Amino acid sequence: MPPRRAGAARLDPPRARLDVEERRRQLIELGSRLFSSRTYDEVSIDELARAAGISKGLLYHYFPTKRDFYVATVRHAAKDLLERTFRPSEMTAAERLQGGLDAFLEYVSEHGTAYTSLLRSGIGADLEVARIVDSTREEFCTRLVEGLGIDAPGPLMRPALRGWVGFVEAATIDWLSSPRPAERAALRSFLVEVLFAMVLIAGK
Amino acid sequence: MPPRRAGAARLDPPRARLDVEERRRQLIELGSRLFSSRTYDEVSIDELARAAGISKGLLYHYFPTKRDFYVATVRHAAKDLLERTFRPSEMTAAERLQGGLDAFLEYVSEHGTAYTSLLRSGIGADLEVARIVDSTREEFCTRLVEGLGIDAPGPLMRPALRGWVGFVEAATIDWLSSPRPAERAALRSFLVEVLFAMVLIAGK
Repeated sequence: MPPRRAGAARLDPPRARLDVEERRRQLIELGSRLFSSRTYDEVSIDELARAAGISKGLLYHYFPTKRDFYVATVRHAAKDLLERTFRPSEMTAAERLQGGLDAFLEYVSEHGTAYTSLLRSGIGADLEVARIVDSTREEFCTRLVEGLGIDAPGPLMRPALRGWVGFVEAATIDWLSSPRPAERAALRSFLVEVLFAMVLIAGK
Repeated sequence: MPPRRAGAARLDPPRARLDVEERRRQLIELGSRLFSSRTYDEVSIDELARAAGISKGLLYHYFPTKRDFYVATVRHAAKDLLERTFRPSEMTAAERLQGGLDAFLEYVSEHGTAYTSLLRSGIGADLEVARIVDSTREEFCTRLVEGLGIDAPGPLMRPALRGWVGFVEAATIDWLSSPRPAERAALRSFLVEVLFAMVLIAGK
């Protein structure tokens, strides 16, 4: 090992770390764009490296495998979706729900292919990806429980709320591919009304 | 090519074909049992061959890859699910829906792991598996449209029905893993009531 110079040694590692993190962040954003319109299988590591303007070797330095890179973009997308759909508790429950759904529909309209293919069945599941998808759905449920002020849920309430999230996903995927889709605002109102009806039925 | 003897030639090929099909059918049933309680990744081709009492080489003769074998079991499961949930048109719409849902909940209670892991997110989708899952959902929608007598669906009806199928799937997956699950009959009634509420709202 070469001898370390005190000052430089103290400054360089954090700087270098920042660069690595910053570069990873840029690559993830690039990956998110590429995976937005095409599926995992369609995007090659060669193309990712070319689009990033770096060598394959350097790309592997940041993400050891294509899967690692994909998982990182899924994690980034989930975080982004949760942030964009978040509404502060100062708003009314109805405003939070409607605003959150508007943001959700805007998000999936922008990332249709990635969203649809992420939720499509494949051969075998990937534990890490499944966990990210599941915890995103769970966070939506937690927001619903809080927003709707449900404090003593009966045995049907959890299946109802997780079911509603599945309903929103499936309805949205159908809407995205419809030749004559409903207006986005009409779909949003429909999703809200179904939630209220469902909660009433589950709580009976 | 050896010369063909007229009589034997006419009988043998169908017989041999039947044996191959019969053996494939037996293997698919075995695969369905094994994939019922464990995921695709957990079941090895060695184990499948051992459980079938045949060599790996012979198993590969019927199914060239593990994926082929898995796709065949998914196709078999989808056909089985559609048959078991089918109710003849002589019954009332409500009877067909309730009876179909009872059969559905019984089916997924028996095949919980396979069902849950089939619908779990993975790395990349498999076109053939995704198509089987999608056409099963589509068949459920067709039955709903027919059973409910919907003849001029507005732009929200399709997202509503596909959404309801997604709702049933997500609610059921949550119910299967619940530490204190609702009674099966209570869940079934809830699913039915939500469908009726949803159709009313979508048709407004």
